[in-house]
Amino acid sequence: MSTSAQIGVTGLAVMGRNLARNFARNGFSVAVHNRTAAKTRALVEEFGHEGTFVAAESAEEFVAALERPRRLVVMVKAGEPTDAVIREFAPLLEPGDMIIDGGNAHFADTRRREKELREQGIHFVGTGVSGGEEGALNGPSIMPGGSVESYATLGPMLEKISAKAADGTPCVTHCGPDGAGHFVKMVHNGIEYADMQLIAEAYHLLREVAGYSPAEIADIFRTWNRGRLDSYLIEITAEVLSHVDAATGKPFVDVVQDRAEQKGTGRWTVQIALDLGVPVSGIAEAVFARSLSGHTALREASRDLAGPTAQPLGEAEKAAFADQVEQALYASKIVSYTQGFHEIQAGSEEYGWDIDLGAVAAIWRGGCIIRAAFLDRIRAAYDARADLPSLLSDKGFAEEIATAQDDWRAVLVAATQQGVPTPGFSAALAYYDALRAERLPAALTQGQRDFFGAHTYRRTDREGSFHTLWGGDRSEVEA
Amino acid sequence: MSTSAQIGVTGLAVMGRNLARNFARNGFSVAVHNRTAAKTRALVEEFGHEGTFVAAESAEEFVAALERPRRLVVMVKAGEPTDAVIREFAPLLEPGDMIIDGGNAHFADTRRREKELREQGIHFVGTGVSGGEEGALNGPSIMPGGSVESYATLGPMLEKISAKAADGTPCVTHCGPDGAGHFVKMVHNGIEYADMQLIAEAYHLLREVAGYSPAEIADIFRTWNRGRLDSYLIEITAEVLSHVDAATGKPFVDVVQDRAEQKGTGRWTVQIALDLGVPVSGIAEAVFARSLSGHTALREASRDLAGPTAQPLGEAEKAAFADQVEQALYASKIVSYTQGFHEIQAGSEEYGWDIDLGAVAAIWRGGCIIRAAFLDRIRAAYDARADLPSLLSDKGFAEEIATAQDDWRAVLVAATQQGVPTPGFSAALAYYDALRAERLPAALTQGQRDFFGAHTYRRTDREGSFHTLWGGDRSEVEA
Repeated sequence: MSTSAQIGVTGLAVMGRNLARNFARNGFSVAVHNRTAAKTRALVEEFGHEGTFVAAESAEEFVAALERPRRLVVMVKAGEPTDAVIREFAPLLEPGDMIIDGGNAHFADTRRREKELREQGIHFVGTGVSGGEEGALNGPSIMPGGSVESYATLGPMLEKISAKAADGTPCVTHCGPDGAGHFVKMVHNGIEYADMQLIAEAYHLLREVAGYSPAEIADIFRTWNRGRLDSYLIEITAEVLSHVDAATGKPFVDVVQDRAEQKGTGRWTVQIALDLGVPVSGIAEAVFARSLSGHTALREASRDLAGPTAQPLGEAEKAAFADQVEQALYASKIVSYTQGFHEIQAGSEEYGWDIDLGAVAAIWRGGCIIRAAFLDRIRAAYDARADLPSLLSDKGFAEEIATAQDDWRAVLVAATQQGVPTPGFSAALAYYDALRAERLPAALTQGQRDFFGAHTYRRTDREGSFHTLWGGDRSEVEA
Repeated sequence: MSTSAQIGVTGLAVMGRNLARNFARNGFSVAVHNRTAAKTRALVEEFGHEGTFVAAESAEEFVAALERPRRLVVMVKAGEPTDAVIREFAPLLEPGDMIIDGGNAHFADTRRREKELREQGIHFVGTGVSGGEEGALNGPSIMPGGSVESYATLGPMLEKISAKAADGTPCVTHCGPDGAGHFVKMVHNGIEYADMQLIAEAYHLLREVAGYSPAEIADIFRTWNRGRLDSYLIEITAEVLSHVDAATGKPFVDVVQDRAEQKGTGRWTVQIALDLGVPVSGIAEAVFARSLSGHTALREASRDLAGPTAQPLGEAEKAAFADQVEQALYASKIVSYTQGFHEIQAGSEEYGWDIDLGAVAAIWRGGCIIRAAFLDRIRAAYDARADLPSLLSDKGFAEEIATAQDDWRAVLVAATQQGVPTPGFSAALAYYDALRAERLPAALTQGQRDFFGAHTYRRTDREGSFHTLWGGDRSEVEA
């Protein structure tokens, strides 16, 4: 047993295996370990020719195989399995060693683990890894948190195995201390939910309001993919929509059950946003849309509820409507990213992470599910002004949304009148109109709260907190 | 020191004090205790004539003053203060005694406390109490959880001090075991957030789209309060809107800062709904609307974003628009309650609480902030059919929403075109249209998930899970 491996991967399910191969293919010697040794042997047998693997049968062997400081990548299920692996390996490590958790951990767990291991002198690096199996093998977008010290030697290795943006930049950056990496990954997934929901609504509108077929809609998405919406998700939407089911000859999308599943990171994004006081209505609607779709019995019981029947447009109007939908999709997408980046900004402030929002946009340009040309624009916006109050404050985005808004509104009018649900588009517009409102009816809400709960209110014309004696002579007192 | 008190209250801030007085006024002997004894003495001095109070200076005295089984009501801040009080009193109690927590605890904390105390043979009764100071004194809506055994003797006392519905029924019911009471109270508050947001949007539309003044809108709300919207919140909205600020002579609502605050139960309602997979988009939008209103810097930076300027309606159209807004408000309200009751139903299933939804509606008819004639309709709907899939499945509500929907859509079209934010109305309509949809674009979402993550999908025409080999020949395999 040599002690030469530069990095080790434990947990050799498909993500771990592909990540180990990615390291090996990039010239790193990789120690590999799995709870059941058969998987370790299988990996070396099948892919040993791709690089230098050191197969370890036991935890002790695995740790002994790593050069110091040790870099131990954990690729097991988030939650208790991660804690179990830490309990197994931490006693075998020495100060300065690193445990890198590449699973989809909740950032609060990562903060806890980082703190516990820091007391032993071990660097715990919670790392978002996006791009699925394919990305893990050929280049994911990587979002590490943890100490600056750990990133000094780990960073260059991650840069090597990561995806590269169109300009060649590696899609990895040190997000910030402790849970910053997993937090960024969580919001990435929340944005992914919103992106997918907006695309679903655009498809639904083109189908129900314009009367296009799935194949025609695939072509429309292909056209969009050559413009400012150029992105992986738009690209695969066209692939899915143009696919024909071999068994029935029907469009594939028509034989798939319309019940969307979810794994949890979208939900977390909304729950944490609520704690941080950040409105992420677009992401929330995307998560709710998936839940709603799965309530089969409730949907069946509701099918007879009254509503208009969509009247497909005539040929002449269809193309114009498709252009309007593109505007609505793009404007809503800007809002989703505005909300997502607001959440990262708020998390960064709350936890003192000092996250560089431009750098986050930059590393999402390649490797991950939401990779898109659009992200280069976001990077540029934050690079030009790191303290941008929001993406909507960027002149370029504000101008685009100004151009888009008439069409955006027209699409929502059509959806409303024709009974096609557009929770994501609608939430995005409501957010936009609320943000730009001179006055919001929140003043009435505060008045009500003061009336029934003596919660007090502030005045527009002077400092202080006030309460009106609603049950008495309705005079105002300072609270 | 006599040992005759039938119930004890510890924590004599305004809610505890008023609840103690309420018990005393209803003929119960009440032991009272507070961390600082001055408050205890002040209560007895000021209100001693209202009934029989037994002032206790120490925890030991307090416990000794209670007849057995002891009934000890804790009215302190939710969270650690509640745990501290339990740690102080539990060792002094005996099997069969009851600790009743009347604070706004998170139901998960209540479940934990109930379990811990049950091991000591002590009944822990987490109880929602709604109606604020006024309700605590004159009759709140009470939502107790805990054991059936504890309710047997506690219930009749609570019935006595509770609010009474118009038909004389006490506004209290045994919600279910352990955390059921605090869960029901949490959702009550979430629904309250939604109700308030919908009212705020109705006001905003009447102001911006119709051009009515606050005083005129107060009159419109007074009219609505004589119809199916008859409720405490509509009533106080009219009071707040007709109030004129003495200092400036302006409408009160125009001198109040438009930043709405919140305390947490609305947020919890959404977070728990996400865990339960229940779409509560209307409640979520209400919580987000409050957060958004408070982001002052962001709003200031966004004020120049492009949008239409609302063009107030002519005299002839105003009244018709007001009628449409009433329809939109009512329809959206039905959806909010549908979502809230769905959450209670889901919580009840998840935790095995067997909550009677009709009974919950019944006890909200008096004492609490959301009390409304409307709740009697909900009670009747669930009484007629306890397993109603949702409120929208009730024939009466379905018919009303069928009548309302054209106007509901017309109001949203006006809001969309004129740039008035209606997140609550819009989320409600999107929910409604999604529920009744024959097919949802969730099929596309599942197709995308299968494409990028091999997450598999189900087919409409046969059982099983399937995966398409997207990167290969695109044939389908069983997963």
